Amino acid sequence: MRPSPQKPRSSGLVVLGGEGARAPGEVWLVGAGPGDPELLTLKALKVLQQADVVVHDGLVSDEILDFAPPRARRISVAKRKSRHSYSQEDINRMLVAFAREGLRVVRLKGGDPFIFGRGGEERDFCRAEGVACHVVPGVTAALGAAAPLTHRGAAQAVTFVTGHASSGGEPDLDWASLARANQTVVIYMGLSTAPAIAGRLIAAGRAASTPALIVENASRPDERRLPTTLGGLPEAAAELSGPALLIVGEAMGAEIASFETPAAPAPQDDELRANTNLVMVRSGRKAASRITQGGAA
Amino acid sequence: MRPSPQKPRSSGLVVLGGEGARAPGEVWLVGAGPGDPELLTLKALKVLQQADVVVHDGLVSDEILDFAPPRARRISVAKRKSRHSYSQEDINRMLVAFAREGLRVVRLKGGDPFIFGRGGEERDFCRAEGVACHVVPGVTAALGAAAPLTHRGAAQAVTFVTGHASSGGEPDLDWASLARANQTVVIYMGLSTAPAIAGRLIAAGRAASTPALIVENASRPDERRLPTTLGGLPEAAAELSGPALLIVGEAMGAEIASFETPAAPAPQDDELRANTNLVMVRSGRKAASRITQGGAA
Repeated sequence: MRPSPQKPRSSGLVVLGGEGARAPGEVWLVGAGPGDPELLTLKALKVLQQADVVVHDGLVSDEILDFAPPRARRISVAKRKSRHSYSQEDINRMLVAFAREGLRVVRLKGGDPFIFGRGGEERDFCRAEGVACHVVPGVTAALGAAAPLTHRGAAQAVTFVTGHASSGGEPDLDWASLARANQTVVIYMGLSTAPAIAGRLIAAGRAASTPALIVENASRPDERRLPTTLGGLPEAAAELSGPALLIVGEAMGAEIASFETPAAPAPQDDELRANTNLVMVRSGRKAASRITQGGAA
Repeated sequence: MRPSPQKPRSSGLVVLGGEGARAPGEVWLVGAGPGDPELLTLKALKVLQQADVVVHDGLVSDEILDFAPPRARRISVAKRKSRHSYSQEDINRMLVAFAREGLRVVRLKGGDPFIFGRGGEERDFCRAEGVACHVVPGVTAALGAAAPLTHRGAAQAVTFVTGHASSGGEPDLDWASLARANQTVVIYMGLSTAPAIAGRLIAAGRAASTPALIVENASRPDERRLPTTLGGLPEAAAELSGPALLIVGEAMGAEIASFETPAAPAPQDDELRANTNLVMVRSGRKAASRITQGGAA
């Protein structure tokens, strides 16, 4: 940490004692939200603005990374098909090693750190090594899709599953449970396995006519929403290639109906988005001042 | 909307045309997050700072309501046991009526608007009445509890259910599905029905020794975490009275173990919280400037 009037305690040690006596570093496991930089939490922004190192996934956009100070080191640990990728073990060790150098380490993950992000393993590793690890929750992609996941009378429960098995093939899920009516099932990373998933759910008794929605790039400017049915999922999924959620359940019926009867135009929303693109992507300082301006209007 | 240099298009109409020609109002369905004001999203803060009216639930704290401009009208539609409460129908009509007055209406709900918040009904009602309704997702309480809801090998799925039936008694859930191993079940509003829920899950085959965690006032300064087991849930729940989540699943084993081997002390976190209390609760303008200071450190 650097000396600053706001942080006399931890950074004072750095100044007085030199490198050898640095304050212990820490790891912050931070949810970056679903994509829209404005869906970052205030706490995530603050922690990011104080980062010395940012270790991030591939899904975290440059707009969000730009909130970190220019001096902060940025390390992508995105999975790559053709080149060397960091293993989970590599990532765990990297977090601990940076913290032991006295650095403030932000481990920035798309969505929420504890929904299919292996955040639990990273936290447990840090703590087992005696490194403090704090968690900043985030808006997970299923919420970022802004579709009514629960709906009185149509969905008393919502289940998040991953469509991507750790072995690489079809996921080993409890299809009978997921096939019950009156619940919403959100499948993360299920685009490539959509045919298998739809087939399994239908075979387990879920009606092929159950409303379904695919949301690609949820909350981003290039978001696409494809209304379909469980039976139509494979065909709809074949049209898309970006990060996408499959959402299956009766509650999607109202969501799909709302596409067909569009609401009144929403100039404010476009305006907010335009402001976001123009101002928020540059730096945390400008983003914050824009927020203040909004409040003073 | 008020005239301001940032918003020439919509507010220009107000200035030129007078009251009779106001721009149409809009409804923003906004998730306030789990409680900690810093777990609000940047977008929620911005929208709140531009509100004319804030219609809020009982769980939304004063610290968060203080982000709205002082001139904004605040209306609590909290459920009350002894006095008149607003029905869902009343709330729906109120949102539409305010919007038709040309106001920017923020419907502020604890957590995320679409997780057990009846947000879907409010959105659908607004749209059916021709009123634009935008959704700002939030960090739902289950994420705010910052426990590893999914965990490789221990939880491939996470399900959110409500422990509070609309009829007022025990919820009518699919106990057989919820009793399967290798998943995490999060029960919202389940404190009073914890004995019935634990009994049902055990009867349906979930081991009484399954790790469980109760989180009261998740993310707030008075948060309490009670580690227990499924069999111990009724007794643990009896100790608490605030808003609480019950979390049941093998993945809570690691969470509970981490209580027993506490991590190194975390001065930064306390410091952040202290700053929050001192600065962020006052106004959006100060909160934003605090964020900027953090970035400049």
